[in-house]
Amino acid sequence: MAIGKTTWAIAEGYIPAAGEHEEDRALRSHETACILNTGDQTANLEIWIYFTDRDPVGPYRLSVAGRRTLHMRFDELSDPQSVPRETDFASVIESDLPVVVQHTRLDARMGSIALLTTMAYGD
Amino acid sequence: MAIGKTTWAIAEGYIPAAGEHEEDRALRSHETACILNTGDQTANLEIWIYFTDRDPVGPYRLSVAGRRTLHMRFDELSDPQSVPRETDFASVIESDLPVVVQHTRLDARMGSIALLTTMAYGD
Amino acid sequence: MAIGKTTWAIAEGYIPAAGEHEEDRALRSHETACILNTGDQTANLEIWIYFTDRDPVGPYRLSVAGRRTLHMRFDELSDPQSVPRETDFASVIESDLPVVVQHTRLDARMGSIALLTTMAYGD
Amino acid sequence: MAIGKTTWAIAEGYIPAAGEHEEDRALRSHETACILNTGDQTANLEIWIYFTDRDPVGPYRLSVAGRRTLHMRFDELSDPQSVPRETDFASVIESDLPVVVQHTRLDARMGSIALLTTMAYGD
Repeated sequence: MAIGKTTWAIAEGYIPAAGEHEEDRALRSHETACILNTGDQTANLEIWIYFTDRDPVGPYRLSVAGRRTLHMRFDELSDPQSVPRETDFASVIESDLPVVVQHTRLDARMGSIALLTTMAYGD
Repeated sequence: MAIGKTTWAIAEGYIPAAGEHEEDRALRSHETACILNTGDQTANLEIWIYFTDRDPVGPYRLSVAGRRTLHMRFDELSDPQSVPRETDFASVIESDLPVVVQHTRLDARMGSIALLTTMAYGD
Repeated sequence: MAIGKTTWAIAEGYIPAAGEHEEDRALRSHETACILNTGDQTANLEIWIYFTDRDPVGPYRLSVAGRRTLHMRFDELSDPQSVPRETDFASVIESDLPVVVQHTRLDARMGSIALLTTMAYGD
Repeated sequence: MAIGKTTWAIAEGYIPAAGEHEEDRALRSHETACILNTGDQTANLEIWIYFTDRDPVGPYRLSVAGRRTLHMRFDELSDPQSVPRETDFASVIESDLPVVVQHTRLDARMGSIALLTTMAYGD
């Protein structure tokens, strides 16, 4: 039986300006939802992005194969539209199978980097 | 059905000195409660601030419209009174509808920035 | 009814070397258990410190008055003995009344500061 | 009765390049699963590492004696194979007795350090 839940919420969301290391994917400011699928079957996910002053955008669709992890970067989402930098948002991830979701940010605005992480809220 | 809970607690609270980037709202030291309301109706919230050596202050009242997120900055609360910088505090957020609450700090005291985040404790 | 639980565990524990700002209590490297007591009565707590290679030390006794928060610094515990710096540890906090516990570290070893936080594990 | 759960998942996993302090074990970039065993008996654990594009690797076997903590560094695992740096992964920790697991990273790539932590997801 796969570990986790099928609904996850992340109330914090903010992709800082790319920073001084813009050419380096690993060191460019980014925000990630790390998704772990411990089950044998592919999990199909829908992500909605919530904003302060306009309707949610989505669904962003993606899948995580069985026994795999996907570290999904919000700055690389593009369909139905990209997630703007330097804008407050939040997100909800719905999966058809149980998964575990953890939220991480790398902030490179000031040359050095800062990090944060938390487990998402599993409902 | 909206995701989340109606009572949330954040035991950590500390707004550092503003730091070297005081003129820049995004880079000034701050502490945030990110609130996500996935429901269709407006959520009405009351926030209480707890201190080490005096009675709690509140309620701070605010609302989050349906299908919106609000990244509430503690350094911008003013009614009934502002939250002092460089002072230990804690907070409780009560909502009339389920919401999700995540706590974040940006500390800019040392020129570079440091970040922390965690889901609040949902009771 | 007070918010929280009566048993909390923090598996991570490490007080870094004090760092370059040793004279400044706020900027000296430290590790904190932030305790929030939303009830009306004083909560009485016992803390045990666990190590890698020796028996736990404790109890450290402290109390948090009703409707107050205490940001307890591990580097300022002294009875029955101080917590060594640069040593892996973990902690358990038992309270006679429900409280909320959040774990935070400020690491000042490198001149700039780094931060981490998480809600403790409430059992 | 020991505190915790017997299954824990960490969806985020990434060991950054060692950084400028490669000779110093404490300041070299690392990722840790801090395990606390509050029970009297030794807990026996199996860890599986999940990847983006290949099958999970494991089990890594280790034990945590009763009333002890172990801050297990992913960069020091070697059997059945080491965990590659600069590669997305995730992990699952199974224990035969209840334990508490907290995830921490120290990132030293940029000279200064950045930290993150969260309680793991206990199933």
